[in-house]
Amino acid sequence: MNNYSSKLVNRAVDELSKLPGIGRKSALRLVLHLLKQDIHEVEALGEAIIKMRLEIRFCSSCHNISDDELCEICRNPKRDHSTICVVEEIRDVMAIENTGQYNGIYHVLNGIISPLDGIGPNDLNIISLVDKIGQKKTNEVIMALPTTIEGDTTNYYIYKQLTPFGVLITTIARGVAIGDELEYTDEITLGRSILNRTPYKGTTEYKD
Amino acid sequence: MNNYSSKLVNRAVDELSKLPGIGRKSALRLVLHLLKQDIHEVEALGEAIIKMRLEIRFCSSCHNISDDELCEICRNPKRDHSTICVVEEIRDVMAIENTGQYNGIYHVLNGIISPLDGIGPNDLNIISLVDKIGQKKTNEVIMALPTTIEGDTTNYYIYKQLTPFGVLITTIARGVAIGDELEYTDEITLGRSILNRTPYKGTTEYKD
Repeated sequence: MNNYSSKLVNRAVDELSKLPGIGRKSALRLVLHLLKQDIHEVEALGEAIIKMRLEIRFCSSCHNISDDELCEICRNPKRDHSTICVVEEIRDVMAIENTGQYNGIYHVLNGIISPLDGIGPNDLNIISLVDKIGQKKTNEVIMALPTTIEGDTTNYYIYKQLTPFGVLITTIARGVAIGDELEYTDEITLGRSILNRTPYKGTTEYKD
Repeated sequence: MNNYSSKLVNRAVDELSKLPGIGRKSALRLVLHLLKQDIHEVEALGEAIIKMRLEIRFCSSCHNISDDELCEICRNPKRDHSTICVVEEIRDVMAIENTGQYNGIYHVLNGIISPLDGIGPNDLNIISLVDKIGQKKTNEVIMALPTTIEGDTTNYYIYKQLTPFGVLITTIARGVAIGDELEYTDEITLGRSILNRTPYKGTTEYKD
């Protein structure tokens, strides 16, 4: 099943099918597409991937991806540097940025505490978070980790580390998603949304 | 929606999302995956794509992909060079090769006649097919084109071109797919499978 009558094609299919979510059939479809493209297009793709991996840096403050010592968010003087949102992964930064609802800075843990996977606090960017809060004036740390046992464990561990600094620690709201029907919401989420009910602010619920 | 706080990441996402079936979200997932890989892995991927596009050739006889003047199939003396299977695309060669049921050679048209898309006979590899049959002894030409109006038109055009050579022209069998229920087979396919019924050869229908 690995004979596409060309070693070059075999190799490209092998490499592409290592990517997540791309099987050998999809890889072959991509290869046949690339063969029809202008050589400059294909070089642009190949070089963009290599250049990105070679030259990418991680922000020395928040561990987000960056082209420089500090990322664009940490360099931006218009952001509120006294509010830090703690997330598991770089893609969570992107997801929150896309909402357009947050103007603070971030801290990427690069994982969460998971004893079963052998990931302890020292494998994560927790020390740099504690250092940052010890050095800079911080009003609030928003925990935006997954609602799992691992997420709860990480929340609790960081909470204990930050307690001495007297900083306000919050977690993002959990509740019924906007547009969701109550009857199809799971019981734990629905229960928590009742416990954590918020004052009614008029009809425009979508804007705060 | 195009700010991943890194120009390098933006560019890699832009390039990857040009590929068929890969949107911006999938492209970003691939980028974040690649960022975690060893640099040599990422270079291997980027270089395999570029090298393939730069160095790939097309067989001067059958137009299949090739690393050389002639493809592996056309170079193989064990293949039956008097039987030519005509297909639309390179991937059809791969599909038929994967069946392990065919030992002849191929001819890739690189498309089918489609007036609506502005594709006429001269845009396809038809002249080289006619030349080949005029020069080499050919016993049979098997038409393996799609069962569409365009496929039928192309079949008929090639049939007319090849008639002077007195070569046997066949089409691949159309009928109920193996494992399919009759009641869920479309009427045209089922009707054709009755018209083109074949003599019963005992219980082992799967081997010929």
